[in-house]
Amino acid sequence: MTVNLTEKFKDNIVCKGLGITYPIIQGGMIWVSGSKLAATCSESGILGTIGAGSMTPEVLKEHILKAQKLTSKPIAVNIPLLYSRCQEQIEICLEHGVKTIITSAGSPKKFTTLIKNAGPKVLHVTSNPLLAKKCEDAGVDMVIAEGFEAGGHNGRDELTTMVLIPQVRKAVSIPVIAAGGIGSGQSIMAALCLGADGVQIGSLFAAAVESSAHDQFKKKITEAGYDSTRLMLKNLVPVRLLENNFSKKVALLEQNGASEAELKELLGKGRSKLGMFDGNMEEGELEIGQIACSIDRVSRVSEIVGTLLSELGSSLMRL
Amino acid sequence: MTVNLTEKFKDNIVCKGLGITYPIIQGGMIWVSGSKLAATCSESGILGTIGAGSMTPEVLKEHILKAQKLTSKPIAVNIPLLYSRCQEQIEICLEHGVKTIITSAGSPKKFTTLIKNAGPKVLHVTSNPLLAKKCEDAGVDMVIAEGFEAGGHNGRDELTTMVLIPQVRKAVSIPVIAAGGIGSGQSIMAALCLGADGVQIGSLFAAAVESSAHDQFKKKITEAGYDSTRLMLKNLVPVRLLENNFSKKVALLEQNGASEAELKELLGKGRSKLGMFDGNMEEGELEIGQIACSIDRVSRVSEIVGTLLSELGSSLMRL
Repeated sequence: MTVNLTEKFKDNIVCKGLGITYPIIQGGMIWVSGSKLAATCSESGILGTIGAGSMTPEVLKEHILKAQKLTSKPIAVNIPLLYSRCQEQIEICLEHGVKTIITSAGSPKKFTTLIKNAGPKVLHVTSNPLLAKKCEDAGVDMVIAEGFEAGGHNGRDELTTMVLIPQVRKAVSIPVIAAGGIGSGQSIMAALCLGADGVQIGSLFAAAVESSAHDQFKKKITEAGYDSTRLMLKNLVPVRLLENNFSKKVALLEQNGASEAELKELLGKGRSKLGMFDGNMEEGELEIGQIACSIDRVSRVSEIVGTLLSELGSSLMRL
Repeated sequence: MTVNLTEKFKDNIVCKGLGITYPIIQGGMIWVSGSKLAATCSESGILGTIGAGSMTPEVLKEHILKAQKLTSKPIAVNIPLLYSRCQEQIEICLEHGVKTIITSAGSPKKFTTLIKNAGPKVLHVTSNPLLAKKCEDAGVDMVIAEGFEAGGHNGRDELTTMVLIPQVRKAVSIPVIAAGGIGSGQSIMAALCLGADGVQIGSLFAAAVESSAHDQFKKKITEAGYDSTRLMLKNLVPVRLLENNFSKKVALLEQNGASEAELKELLGKGRSKLGMFDGNMEEGELEIGQIACSIDRVSRVSEIVGTLLSELGSSLMRL
């Protein structure tokens, strides 16, 4: 006996709302999730997401058009609201028929009405139940609740997925998507138990064959141990990084009580591109989640999604 | 239709190994979990634990004898190995027929053989998969894997329960008990999905009627919000604290890159007793987990366990 997951999730509120088969979103990640990763993920029945945070509006447009050539299934675009040209990015999504826009790192009040009036669904990323409620009040369709263990930019709240999801579930009536620390069908099942309606997975897809991360970065992800990442730069914008020369310099500065200016000077410009896209493993900024320790090889999206679904099916059977 | 949990957990490896009905351990906590809390928990079908960390060997003996008068069911004793008189504490447990000894904050090699040769089961607390494997190699019967979100003393690894449990599950063949961030039947279910055989719950029982925490501390736990705790004193012994004047002073020192000596001077002696037992809410050290934000009232153990089981039953039914 096996579980028919397509049937199981037929009426799932995230699947129905976003037009996907399984309630899994591939997280939008800077330098890593372009048209190829997003389109391949969408083709596999989950929601592929283009990470616009590292793209000019012109480059984003190219990626949307390419992705739409690769798949007729819906794709999403993740837009961090801290970038100066985010409004242009939103306009490009609206012009090109993107059905789901995921906003983060800013107020959900700023663009939600504009986007919704044009048609697309709006999802907003939150790291605490208070902001989740503000998202709901602003008209956001679903919230992505992201725990402390997640990679890349993170909230200041340090709430872990285990504690965050039930809190957000209690705070809002809209669908809740769990993010942070999810890397197996078992952990998708755990997130659903905690009250989530779906999940967002980043790190696993950063290391996929179809990701645009540099091969050296993908290799380094597969080599990560349980103690290879840390949430750093808490006094600037908290970000979870893989350990390397750069992260050690940050740690040293932070331990000595460095000022914001000193940290900004060390950070400089283009650190994340240098690491994740150009492949400088020692001086670049390498954003990844704690769950990297569970990733031991670079696989195709089809294989990653297949494994997740098969584990999820077994979990359901076992219970 | 309801789920018969007694039947469901009849063959559970933690239940069978520890002689309990439900695979739930009440965490041993300094100043909070004496004979009354432990005995009441054991009477309710879970494993009650006396927290020896705040007791002299003489006081521990009194608590064991009292607990044994209150219940004929097994009770455990938690012994942090960083205390100078921990060997005497272990000997008292052995002399008085304690069936389960939980060791923490030290090497599992130190006392495991001694304890096991005398009869009791040994459980050791770990915050990473590497130490978990060392526990297994040292002959420990079960590991308690405790995530970053847990209250009180914590590992340096910062692995959250969501990431830690699957890692520990993969690392060892002995039973794994999940701790950190667990405060509902839904989260017990989530921990089981992640690969745990049982759970340890602390914060919920710290706020119980039967806990020996000061009433002011219990009240403060019920008032905690999502951002009320922080993992602090990482350069001494990492500990998750509830925010108050004392924790703010620690935060200020840490932000300014204070030395170990400066932190030790601020900490002084008896901070945890002052807060948790004597009820000084501003200058005492108040140890509690992130999950405190989900606790909104002081309840009896019977009610807490009843709610956990009823939520767990509903979770099982829903899946």
